[in-house]
Amino acid sequence: MRPFSSIIKTFLQLCDINISHSKILLTNYCHSSVINLYQIKQTIMNANAKVLDSQQLLIHWQGHRNLTRRVIEAFPEKDLFGFSIGGMRPFAKLALELLAIGGPALKGIVDKNMEAYNEEAFNPTTKAEILAKWDEETEVINEYFSQITEERFQETFNLFGQYEFPVYQSILYFVDNEIHHRGQGYVYLRALGIEPPFFWERER
Amino acid sequence: MRPFSSIIKTFLQLCDINISHSKILLTNYCHSSVINLYQIKQTIMNANAKVLDSQQLLIHWQGHRNLTRRVIEAFPEKDLFGFSIGGMRPFAKLALELLAIGGPALKGIVDKNMEAYNEEAFNPTTKAEILAKWDEETEVINEYFSQITEERFQETFNLFGQYEFPVYQSILYFVDNEIHHRGQGYVYLRALGIEPPFFWERER
Repeated sequence: MRPFSSIIKTFLQLCDINISHSKILLTNYCHSSVINLYQIKQTIMNANAKVLDSQQLLIHWQGHRNLTRRVIEAFPEKDLFGFSIGGMRPFAKLALELLAIGGPALKGIVDKNMEAYNEEAFNPTTKAEILAKWDEETEVINEYFSQITEERFQETFNLFGQYEFPVYQSILYFVDNEIHHRGQGYVYLRALGIEPPFFWERER
Repeated sequence: MRPFSSIIKTFLQLCDINISHSKILLTNYCHSSVINLYQIKQTIMNANAKVLDSQQLLIHWQGHRNLTRRVIEAFPEKDLFGFSIGGMRPFAKLALELLAIGGPALKGIVDKNMEAYNEEAFNPTTKAEILAKWDEETEVINEYFSQITEERFQETFNLFGQYEFPVYQSILYFVDNEIHHRGQGYVYLRALGIEPPFFWERER
């Protein structure tokens, strides 16, 4: 009987399908005693399936940004800049980190500019300033996101001159990082006795 | 001069491109005084670009699950089940929510089964039990994720009989919800004086 890996390789050739990142995929079949070739072909095709398009990811991210904006709004002004738990940064500082990433990162990707990012460029002292900048960056993100081609999403780019990843991974990282820090913000709000907005509320 | 929307419509026909969700896309051009048709065509094509494939999203999610596993491990046993801030759930309860979603949700999607989800089915009293279940669900997620076809990602499904969304949105929601709750876990750990794992550390 031919070894498992050889059967898979033949199928790759027959299907003209790329499974360069096949680690998880193949482990699904390694313990199987019956090898169903049709099933393997279907699995390989599914592995290459398009999950979502650029516009859907942009809407998804902007939905998260709408929610983060609502979390910023929910903080009393003094707690936004001053409240913290366990030595972590106050929520205003986290919002500034997010502002220093989103728009500037997309600009860097589109213009292939590897300049370092700068969290010190914008020094607001009021909630209103942060919210105004937030809305400005919403437009910057829309504008630059739409300029990323299908090929670019899979290309590696050295973001800010120090984070070398495929573009799609960098963008997922921006969204994940925002959710992560906003999760901190939820705990701050609860600790302050303030009801945070619903997690599933994403409309502006 | 023809109105802007009519020019766009002509282009849609010429390019045979679907921009059903074109709200964000079109606002980019509404304030522009010069309409560059080549640029509009490119933007529409980019909007439909494939961002990532199924296998890449699975690897992304399992990377997050590896990190969440590390956060569970970082809690002292009694704090995992007992520590909380602002009346929120202890981290063990959050981990049980995540366990009740991931694998069971994917099974539901693949089998088109709309049974409600059940957070009470599994009642561990030790960290070791949670971690063992976590690893079990890792395999369940790998197995069922690979069975989702490209068409299914865009189809609406009434998950658990109550969350009616396109499949890709439900799956993004699972990942987002995990990052959100894990962000809470980071604050709990810091408040306990424990250094959490690095956010960017995703390998098992």
